[in-house]
Amino acid sequence: MQKNNFHVNEHSLKTAISNVEPNKLTTRGYNQQDLIEKIRYGDMIFLILRGRLPSIKESKMFNHVLVSFCDHGVTPPSTQTARIIASSGSPLNSAVAGALLSFGHKHAGAIEKSMELYQSSVNSLILTEDADLDNKQIASLAIDIYNNHISGDEKIPGFGHRYHTTDPRAEKLIQIAIKEGFVGPHIKLAVAIEDLLSQNKGIKLNVDGANAAILSDLGFTPDLGLGIFIIGRIPGIIAHIHEEKMDEDEFRRFCDLDDIIYGGH
Amino acid sequence: MQKNNFHVNEHSLKTAISNVEPNKLTTRGYNQQDLIEKIRYGDMIFLILRGRLPSIKESKMFNHVLVSFCDHGVTPPSTQTARIIASSGSPLNSAVAGALLSFGHKHAGAIEKSMELYQSSVNSLILTEDADLDNKQIASLAIDIYNNHISGDEKIPGFGHRYHTTDPRAEKLIQIAIKEGFVGPHIKLAVAIEDLLSQNKGIKLNVDGANAAILSDLGFTPDLGLGIFIIGRIPGIIAHIHEEKMDEDEFRRFCDLDDIIYGGH
Amino acid sequence: MQKNNFHVNEHSLKTAISNVEPNKLTTRGYNQQDLIEKIRYGDMIFLILRGRLPSIKESKMFNHVLVSFCDHGVTPPSTQTARIIASSGSPLNSAVAGALLSFGHKHAGAIEKSMELYQSSVNSLILTEDADLDNKQIASLAIDIYNNHISGDEKIPGFGHRYHTTDPRAEKLIQIAIKEGFVGPHIKLAVAIEDLLSQNKGIKLNVDGANAAILSDLGFTPDLGLGIFIIGRIPGIIAHIHEEKMDEDEFRRFCDLDDIIYGGH
Amino acid sequence: MQKNNFHVNEHSLKTAISNVEPNKLTTRGYNQQDLIEKIRYGDMIFLILRGRLPSIKESKMFNHVLVSFCDHGVTPPSTQTARIIASSGSPLNSAVAGALLSFGHKHAGAIEKSMELYQSSVNSLILTEDADLDNKQIASLAIDIYNNHISGDEKIPGFGHRYHTTDPRAEKLIQIAIKEGFVGPHIKLAVAIEDLLSQNKGIKLNVDGANAAILSDLGFTPDLGLGIFIIGRIPGIIAHIHEEKMDEDEFRRFCDLDDIIYGGH
Repeated sequence: MQKNNFHVNEHSLKTAISNVEPNKLTTRGYNQQDLIEKIRYGDMIFLILRGRLPSIKESKMFNHVLVSFCDHGVTPPSTQTARIIASSGSPLNSAVAGALLSFGHKHAGAIEKSMELYQSSVNSLILTEDADLDNKQIASLAIDIYNNHISGDEKIPGFGHRYHTTDPRAEKLIQIAIKEGFVGPHIKLAVAIEDLLSQNKGIKLNVDGANAAILSDLGFTPDLGLGIFIIGRIPGIIAHIHEEKMDEDEFRRFCDLDDIIYGGH
Repeated sequence: MQKNNFHVNEHSLKTAISNVEPNKLTTRGYNQQDLIEKIRYGDMIFLILRGRLPSIKESKMFNHVLVSFCDHGVTPPSTQTARIIASSGSPLNSAVAGALLSFGHKHAGAIEKSMELYQSSVNSLILTEDADLDNKQIASLAIDIYNNHISGDEKIPGFGHRYHTTDPRAEKLIQIAIKEGFVGPHIKLAVAIEDLLSQNKGIKLNVDGANAAILSDLGFTPDLGLGIFIIGRIPGIIAHIHEEKMDEDEFRRFCDLDDIIYGGH
Repeated sequence: MQKNNFHVNEHSLKTAISNVEPNKLTTRGYNQQDLIEKIRYGDMIFLILRGRLPSIKESKMFNHVLVSFCDHGVTPPSTQTARIIASSGSPLNSAVAGALLSFGHKHAGAIEKSMELYQSSVNSLILTEDADLDNKQIASLAIDIYNNHISGDEKIPGFGHRYHTTDPRAEKLIQIAIKEGFVGPHIKLAVAIEDLLSQNKGIKLNVDGANAAILSDLGFTPDLGLGIFIIGRIPGIIAHIHEEKMDEDEFRRFCDLDDIIYGGH
Repeated sequence: MQKNNFHVNEHSLKTAISNVEPNKLTTRGYNQQDLIEKIRYGDMIFLILRGRLPSIKESKMFNHVLVSFCDHGVTPPSTQTARIIASSGSPLNSAVAGALLSFGHKHAGAIEKSMELYQSSVNSLILTEDADLDNKQIASLAIDIYNNHISGDEKIPGFGHRYHTTDPRAEKLIQIAIKEGFVGPHIKLAVAIEDLLSQNKGIKLNVDGANAAILSDLGFTPDLGLGIFIIGRIPGIIAHIHEEKMDEDEFRRFCDLDDIIYGGH
């Protein structure tokens, strides 16, 4: 608030993401003209979030993750919100924004909690170069996590689905990770927990839990988990908004008076 | 949703995007497990928006478009909004939602207006198989559009930029379209208008105008223009939110009392 | 914000609403300490929007308007959006924001269109001090508006309701305006249009149309219509969010797979 | 998911807030026509949130609270967000929604934390009818709270302000509560903590802390604290959006390239 002769303006906006100069744009150190010409969109996402380009293996795995979030029909609260807002005649960006607001701790929130669980657990180990030894450590860690949650009657984040007994996306993602030789300690841990939960409770990994493990092995910190989910899901949400605007009556009723129970006095 | 024998439930949610069955997800007719394994994320976006996979040429061009929207530093209102919201301690999805809300008719709105202009103009022509004849028609159309706007002292949407005299993204996108042999009537029209505006006023295509032309030649209708911009820009916005949370003090002041002019009585 | 001797900072934030000084806040020229002690909340709203306190008569009428927007149960898209977002575990402010996003041109949009219609119509008259003459002018204007819309098969904004044949709020508001001697040209016009629509089509004023007329007679411009609706409706939306969080299961399903029609291939 | 003859539709929307019948609206048990005619807007807010009308004393005190939240000029992130979004040409409801999204745990979040602190602390006491004894209990509680926070180097929520050493709103609110004989245990506790903080650290109650105490004495639970803040602040935000649209250039630059520090490689 006070002025003095050596005042450095503390309100300058600072960023390391892009440099904007007249007629020149540089992002994460690369000229945007080169990026536009040469890199895949999935790699662009990796670059802007991480500050470096992915390796070929990382690029493939990250691409599987992004595709796996694409759509779950009209069942998620986010999609329902988007369609209701679109129906009221609001612009597309408002409907997308509304959808994002329903990514609460119940919907999509699991991915970050799951990443925190895997990463804090794995970080507690001293991993060696000896695969057998490490696998044993991880198996024992999985048992601890399982027991902790079961004894506290707590859900393990990233497991179970409201509409599926086996989430087909999680199943496929893990298969691919194995096939492509992309199995680090976090995926190992997720699979070990799944074995226990599946045998004892019939509960399996869901798309959030599988991706949480993969993203952890890709080196993403938990605070980017929800962001990557959002990136992957937005195109589906836009497709639903477009469908609502094209195919449905504007301002259609989503309920009749007969659908409502009045519980007041 | 009351039940009786003759009641057809008019509130059923209907969609052609994805079919959700227990343990099986199908999107635009493809099993999601196959999509996760086999397609690139850029193609997934094309598929979910258009209902079909792109050709190889379409896939490449659409990828250039998506990358070109990636980031413009801290200058856009959307990025500033995202950072201010992030700074207040709100969750990431709220900050992304706030950013989307600033895509008004001034910011990002140009892309749809530009698509409408190109498409309604090109639709007014009877295009032939004769390239020379068509080029002449388009050149004459560009002159009409130019004169109409200039005489009404109106801006042509998709041209000019607050920070650049030549938008490096637009310049590169048009170069690539020419190099890859992907120049349809809408790109031709955009370039013809640019020639006139550039010679007479020194104003050039911006990223919205160039992409509006490319997306039109890709067969996208204007009502998806803003959606594609959003898809392309969201990763950059998430990177800014993350940077704000990592690198800046929470709840930093964006202004001091001395920065404010009080204009009241 | 760079400093040099000749630079006038063009980015200063300017406002005439409140003056913020250390330990002193002044709003619309009044010390906030006095406002807190002495004025009613409804008058505070009038003051901050209009820059002056209301007269006693204005204060009463504005209060009726604010109360009339309070709630319409779970039928509006805004309320449904708020509850779905709340159900997903998002914070209250996110759920309120989502609700606001569904005030599109179909939901709540009527109030501004209605104000524009009344005000542009009344502004086209040369009103006198002679009540009879003015009433005749207004009656004739109502016939023109009615005929214009009917011949173009257009709805007149502010009339008709999805769930009511007589909107009880509109009916009461007009009765009160008459009883309190608060009937200016805009209310007269609204009532005259209602007479025609009601006799010929059985369609009556709705809460938006009645309030549009009252707010116009109160001197509000159309661009504040939606804002006043929002102010009046927000408490109801917050009550619904609170009820959802207290009384319903978190993340309850809003639809079952059987409720969904898949229309794809 | 399964249908059978006795199926009760579990997706019915249930509410105790309003009953919507054709041509009749009832809110919290009162006919809306009566509410529109007879009650003040501040009381309407109390009614819809609490399910009952306030007493005269409660009505007055709640009114002071609502007015006190009215505006803090352009300094809060919410107001800045609202103006940036409005500047981009987005509709008013989008700009209000954006503002709400910046009520994070740093901005406006203090009110709920403060209510939780006061209420959980007071609930731990066994209050008597003996004022002296109770005052002693509360004084001792304040010392505990003060010591706990100081020893953990933690801020006490509801105290201190970025721009004021004495928040003029808090000061006035407490004066009024005393003058109107509306001082319950929560206000007593807030004042006792302020005495300690003020003497030892020069830190005083802010508007959130004072209102948290008053709302607690009014019987509001913490989960409505942010909602009441939102209700009180929205009119000011709408005034700022309106001012931005009226008085400033659309899409004005909020920064120049020279204002930005590029910290990348």
